[in-house]
Amino acid sequence: MLTYTFEKRSGVSLYEQLYRHIKEDILTGHLTAGEKLPSKRALAGHLELSVITVKNAYEQLIAEGYIYSVEKRGYFVSAVQQPLPHSACAALPRAAGERTYELDLVTNSISAEYFPFTVWSKLMRRTILDHDTGLLRPTPFHGVPELRRAIAENLQQFRGMTVDPEQIVIGAGTEVLYHLLIQLLGRDRTYAVEDPGYGKIGRIYESNQVALRRIELDEAGLSAAALRASGADVVHISPSHHYPTGIVMPIARRQELLRWADEGEGRYILEDDYDSEFRFVGRPIPTMFSTDRHQRVIYLNTFSKTIAPSIRISYMILPPHLMAEYRSRLSFYACTVSSFEQYTLAAFMAQGRYEQHINRMRNRYRQKRDAVIDAIRTGPLAGKAEIMEQDAGLHFLLRLDTPLTDEELRRAAAEKGIRLAFLSDYYHNSAAAPQHVVVVNYSGIEPETLRRGLKRLAELWED
Amino acid sequence: MLTYTFEKRSGVSLYEQLYRHIKEDILTGHLTAGEKLPSKRALAGHLELSVITVKNAYEQLIAEGYIYSVEKRGYFVSAVQQPLPHSACAALPRAAGERTYELDLVTNSISAEYFPFTVWSKLMRRTILDHDTGLLRPTPFHGVPELRRAIAENLQQFRGMTVDPEQIVIGAGTEVLYHLLIQLLGRDRTYAVEDPGYGKIGRIYESNQVALRRIELDEAGLSAAALRASGADVVHISPSHHYPTGIVMPIARRQELLRWADEGEGRYILEDDYDSEFRFVGRPIPTMFSTDRHQRVIYLNTFSKTIAPSIRISYMILPPHLMAEYRSRLSFYACTVSSFEQYTLAAFMAQGRYEQHINRMRNRYRQKRDAVIDAIRTGPLAGKAEIMEQDAGLHFLLRLDTPLTDEELRRAAAEKGIRLAFLSDYYHNSAAAPQHVVVVNYSGIEPETLRRGLKRLAELWED
Repeated sequence: MLTYTFEKRSGVSLYEQLYRHIKEDILTGHLTAGEKLPSKRALAGHLELSVITVKNAYEQLIAEGYIYSVEKRGYFVSAVQQPLPHSACAALPRAAGERTYELDLVTNSISAEYFPFTVWSKLMRRTILDHDTGLLRPTPFHGVPELRRAIAENLQQFRGMTVDPEQIVIGAGTEVLYHLLIQLLGRDRTYAVEDPGYGKIGRIYESNQVALRRIELDEAGLSAAALRASGADVVHISPSHHYPTGIVMPIARRQELLRWADEGEGRYILEDDYDSEFRFVGRPIPTMFSTDRHQRVIYLNTFSKTIAPSIRISYMILPPHLMAEYRSRLSFYACTVSSFEQYTLAAFMAQGRYEQHINRMRNRYRQKRDAVIDAIRTGPLAGKAEIMEQDAGLHFLLRLDTPLTDEELRRAAAEKGIRLAFLSDYYHNSAAAPQHVVVVNYSGIEPETLRRGLKRLAELWED
Repeated sequence: MLTYTFEKRSGVSLYEQLYRHIKEDILTGHLTAGEKLPSKRALAGHLELSVITVKNAYEQLIAEGYIYSVEKRGYFVSAVQQPLPHSACAALPRAAGERTYELDLVTNSISAEYFPFTVWSKLMRRTILDHDTGLLRPTPFHGVPELRRAIAENLQQFRGMTVDPEQIVIGAGTEVLYHLLIQLLGRDRTYAVEDPGYGKIGRIYESNQVALRRIELDEAGLSAAALRASGADVVHISPSHHYPTGIVMPIARRQELLRWADEGEGRYILEDDYDSEFRFVGRPIPTMFSTDRHQRVIYLNTFSKTIAPSIRISYMILPPHLMAEYRSRLSFYACTVSSFEQYTLAAFMAQGRYEQHINRMRNRYRQKRDAVIDAIRTGPLAGKAEIMEQDAGLHFLLRLDTPLTDEELRRAAAEKGIRLAFLSDYYHNSAAAPQHVVVVNYSGIEPETLRRGLKRLAELWED
């Protein structure tokens, strides 16, 4: 009969030990398919265990399919394979240790001290008190009504956009929304992105294996003529402030694109308005969404740029006929943002805290931008660099007067502890890319670091 | 010269009013392309405004592309289209008012009072204090290390799974993870799901337009023979507790499927372990992931079922070679869960609160389940219904002894205020579906409501 030894002080219950022993015997072939096991009572007597211990072990083995019982006949071993040896495991790669630079013009970090953390955490606590167990209920597929209403009111008040909260879909980042849009608009469409442009957008379409065209820009951005020639159905643009060129698409060009969209069935414009909040002069540029008369524009924006990258809340606004389609075909997808953060953001907006925060950020960024531009204009790079400004956004372009290629510049700067990104990095068709134009992402730069960095950068002209 | 009237007390600045007037004139054709505008000084004098007001209005019109300036010559109107009239807007559909039922056996709501809300909110506050502005930094693509470590430790301790935290990818719900998996494994693969099964999974594959096979189950679940015949490369299963049949896949069948996966290049098993925590007898069923020797199993689980549906945190565990591929091809996607909730859950797990919560829930659900089963066995349905139990999960099957079709039953029950779901609802191939089997999702049912509901349901046998 089955004979096993048991460890009384192992912390593992006797039932679990017996279960493991028998399982091991089955997997190693000591017990073979069809073999009859002792009765519970007999095995309990033999091993000096209680019948209930044996019963529990047998039941677990039955549940997992190692043995089976036949009424009035007893317990039998199932036909189970002996496991193969482990295959050699590929070593698991880790993230490469990120090199740190003294001056980093590539990463647009949000200065954490800009964030009204006290207000936000107060609102989080308030949300817990107000909503309590309501926070545990599933939310509507397109987000909690409070947040959609707050967004609609904000857009009405500050962007002059008239939006029904029912047109808004909340998602955990614009990347999640792109996936949904591809499903909504169709995988059989041809999508177009701007070249140069924010590389991630093209990568997402490629990763989803939809047909993708990259459209060259002229000085007014993407043209309807180029779009027509491409055969694209859906175009993804950021007309209020293009990254990295900073182009604000003029009204005539916007009208052209809207006309293009009206010409064919199933044509759409995805208006990615990602940093329109940071315009430093005049009033915000009106959106294409509000100019659109034929339900051809889908508007996208995110709170990751204005609040914090770790706050994963974005939204899109669908024209009514697309929202109806979304509701019938895609509302089975659960909303990807937890209700807790949705309620907190809704309160932050409804109390006017969001607009206050944006205004404060805008002022601080403007000051920082002015300081950075001043340091470049009056520092050791004066006469060697031309600033190409657009009064908006968290970056600007800087053309360097140098015979070095972008790669030579990048390497030489890196040796001096300075990290540079070039306009040419954002071109898919790099032959068309202008050289020596640096994209300055300034939001995380400290003035002292900048001064030291510029001094070292200027050495490149002396070497 | 341009002549406009201004509202002094409208709350709209003079600059904004002037901008609107000129824009309107351009859009209505009163000002035409190429027309020269008055100089700032001349217009200011004529309208009795300050020069700076006119300058600001002109600059905004330039920024938006309505006018342009030519050095030393002045300001000119751009070529801009007159807008077309609004197209008739499709009425925006609203959610149909959800019918409420007195007894709802379809929705598995989590009783909110089961959730340790005090602990959770304490941990949220603690997270704010501990991480402070660190909460505003972007997180690694696969989630914060603290949470991945806590998950790995929990799986080691309670499921006997040895997992490197670097193998874990956190996402805002399993639906987000499915999208990533399709991109990782490839759109050219053929995917298989269980029939019957949780309908949403098939819908997601269909919505992503990948080749999909629905595999009929036998009494042990999905078979390798059926899978081979289907030509699928990737199979999505829930072996520890199938919904809605409750089948626990026996070890022999699991081994068969693992062998199937080893036979061909690019074959994978997606093990969806969504409610394995709620097994009421014995120990948890070991996962296929831990039995797998050849890196063929991807493990998925979610906290939405165990904590709350509005907590959007799920994870997947990739075998090392797939994780390496994920890192090189898909790590450009940002993590979809906010760092705040990740840290809170990490602390909840690290302090043992999660396991405590699961144990408490398991006991409460067992009690509720026993009460529900007892009410059915001893109530007015006795003799008219057979309970098909599996000792696990938040649902069980109930076969009704009736000549009515499922649709007739559903309608008749609805008239009595009772909402029923049938096993046949979960079959894609409904011809193969057993009739009269009700899926009882019991977690949200109150005993008194159930007794009243059963009484009314029993009337169907009297009518």
